[in-house]
Amino acid sequence: AGTQLCNSLGVTEFVGTSVGDTIGLVIASVDPMLVDVMKLGKYRSIGIIGGRTGAGPQIMAVDDAVKATNTEVISIELPRDTKGGAGHGDLIYIGAEDVSDARRAVEIALASLPKYFGDVYGSEAGHLEFQYSARASQCLEKAFGSPLGKAFGMTCAGPAAIGTVLADVAVKAANVDVVCYSSPGNGGTSFSNEVILIFTGDSGAVRQAVRAARAVGLKLLGALGSEPKSTTHPYI
Amino acid sequence: AGTQLCNSLGVTEFVGTSVGDTIGLVIASVDPMLVDVMKLGKYRSIGIIGGRTGAGPQIMAVDDAVKATNTEVISIELPRDTKGGAGHGDLIYIGAEDVSDARRAVEIALASLPKYFGDVYGSEAGHLEFQYSARASQCLEKAFGSPLGKAFGMTCAGPAAIGTVLADVAVKAANVDVVCYSSPGNGGTSFSNEVILIFTGDSGAVRQAVRAARAVGLKLLGALGSEPKSTTHPYI
Amino acid sequence: AGTQLCNSLGVTEFVGTSVGDTIGLVIASVDPMLVDVMKLGKYRSIGIIGGRTGAGPQIMAVDDAVKATNTEVISIELPRDTKGGAGHGDLIYIGAEDVSDARRAVEIALASLPKYFGDVYGSEAGHLEFQYSARASQCLEKAFGSPLGKAFGMTCAGPAAIGTVLADVAVKAANVDVVCYSSPGNGGTSFSNEVILIFTGDSGAVRQAVRAARAVGLKLLGALGSEPKSTTHPYI
Repeated sequence: AGTQLCNSLGVTEFVGTSVGDTIGLVIASVDPMLVDVMKLGKYRSIGIIGGRTGAGPQIMAVDDAVKATNTEVISIELPRDTKGGAGHGDLIYIGAEDVSDARRAVEIALASLPKYFGDVYGSEAGHLEFQYSARASQCLEKAFGSPLGKAFGMTCAGPAAIGTVLADVAVKAANVDVVCYSSPGNGGTSFSNEVILIFTGDSGAVRQAVRAARAVGLKLLGALGSEPKSTTHPYI
Repeated sequence: AGTQLCNSLGVTEFVGTSVGDTIGLVIASVDPMLVDVMKLGKYRSIGIIGGRTGAGPQIMAVDDAVKATNTEVISIELPRDTKGGAGHGDLIYIGAEDVSDARRAVEIALASLPKYFGDVYGSEAGHLEFQYSARASQCLEKAFGSPLGKAFGMTCAGPAAIGTVLADVAVKAANVDVVCYSSPGNGGTSFSNEVILIFTGDSGAVRQAVRAARAVGLKLLGALGSEPKSTTHPYI
Repeated sequence: AGTQLCNSLGVTEFVGTSVGDTIGLVIASVDPMLVDVMKLGKYRSIGIIGGRTGAGPQIMAVDDAVKATNTEVISIELPRDTKGGAGHGDLIYIGAEDVSDARRAVEIALASLPKYFGDVYGSEAGHLEFQYSARASQCLEKAFGSPLGKAFGMTCAGPAAIGTVLADVAVKAANVDVVCYSSPGNGGTSFSNEVILIFTGDSGAVRQAVRAARAVGLKLLGALGSEPKSTTHPYI
């Protein structure tokens, strides 16, 4: 479950792989025939992060990557995936003036990914996901409308019913403001079996809200099956 | 595959679990910040039924529950799930003036669930689902537009091709009226690999139509793999 | 993984089965109550092809079938499926004046299917799909808008990130014209975890573009897990 950065494949686009069947790629100059259909705007050099499982972890990791490099998030798409699980995969395009910046952003994202899988917990019955950032950057703003530079919190669970209770627990646990709420038939989840709450506020309050929801989520998902396990190591 | 009602978890929202990785929950008073985004209307006390597999069984079980309690179905959402299978999961919110009514409705739904998984048949190739009610109540009306107080019949199969034939077999087998037809690209299935037919009519005719489709469905799904098995015990 | 044509089931609608949990069926005369909801237009006799895995292979196989018979494709629907994989299933209706024509078309499609699974490659991490036709017929036109009678090429991969690079590799490898590009949040994929490129041009150029993408795709998907394997035998 670690990150591999190497280029022994002989494919110039390849950067590396990481947790969640995630692959990192770059295209130095996207063919002109594809620029419009891919909605790349002004960019021709792009980094690509995509996985079978996740979305939250990859979005957090790319948020770190764009903070640290001269790049911008172009788009974030959320397929219905997780290899038979209740959630998403992801496809994120990162734009740069120079391909070396795109490559550096992809490397940073792949390296950050194991951290952000730390509060993704799974069992045979479903999964829980929690994310926290003291200071949201452009990827979190683009994905969820979370305010730039403010604290970011996320609670998520599948089956969705558990996610509903976690949303309520989080907002009651601390003085936070709701940024968005997504449910299977209510926009934003690509029909995944999840309820997702995004919130902001004082960073201490946001972290407290996330932790309160995590404590309840581990019990509720545990009631449906075995004890949920972290994918890597909890970080919040 | 039975129902568990207990509250040794120490989570006040927890009611119990049942077949299909289904969990039953209540929130005594949903936080005011969530009432609008959750589209709860006038309700603050809610019951929640959600599972990884199903939709039909949970909708039937909640239909029983709202008949028997002073509650109302607020919403029914259908994620694309079944843990790698061809169908749905579900997320149902039930509203009540008093949380004890919401809890009672959730308990009744969880207890009814094994019955309504009885005509859900599975194999490694796909699944069949049949439901029948002599008298549809508010959950069946809300989910499918089935007329209140009239008989309700449902045929469903994945892969969807089998569901198409079952729809035709059902309407030819008895004098029934089509309420709705859903297919993967035609609304109502969240891109599940199913064709679903809902019909009404005289209760004897509806049951006859369901049984005729069931006999054909078991043969067709059986042609793709092993003999389809009931999840619990057939009830129709 | 072969095709079975037989009718020992005692179900008149049954034609046979093939790769991808695909079943072939016919209805001699669809019940009048279903003709409108199924959007059959002028047809009453229909052939049905539907599977849990695929879409590309079944669309190619039906393209062959309508070329060879007096039939027309009515509709192509793409559920999100592949039994926990990253892609689609499919549901295709074929119309005919006479049920014997519909049955013949379904038989041809089932028999062609193993060929078109030949350039579908899978591993535990995802899949690759490549298709090529020197001369597109009505099913490819209806599914993708590919010009009738012209060469047809398709590259596809899940996770979608790999599909993005394959699209770029294909259009750079030869002088081809883009027909359509599909990504998870960009139309056409039912939220599958795939990027799909359809292109046309001189038949030699189209084949060259497909082969160049295939060579890269096998390396990139291989970087995420074990060596991807053909479902049957490569044909391009």
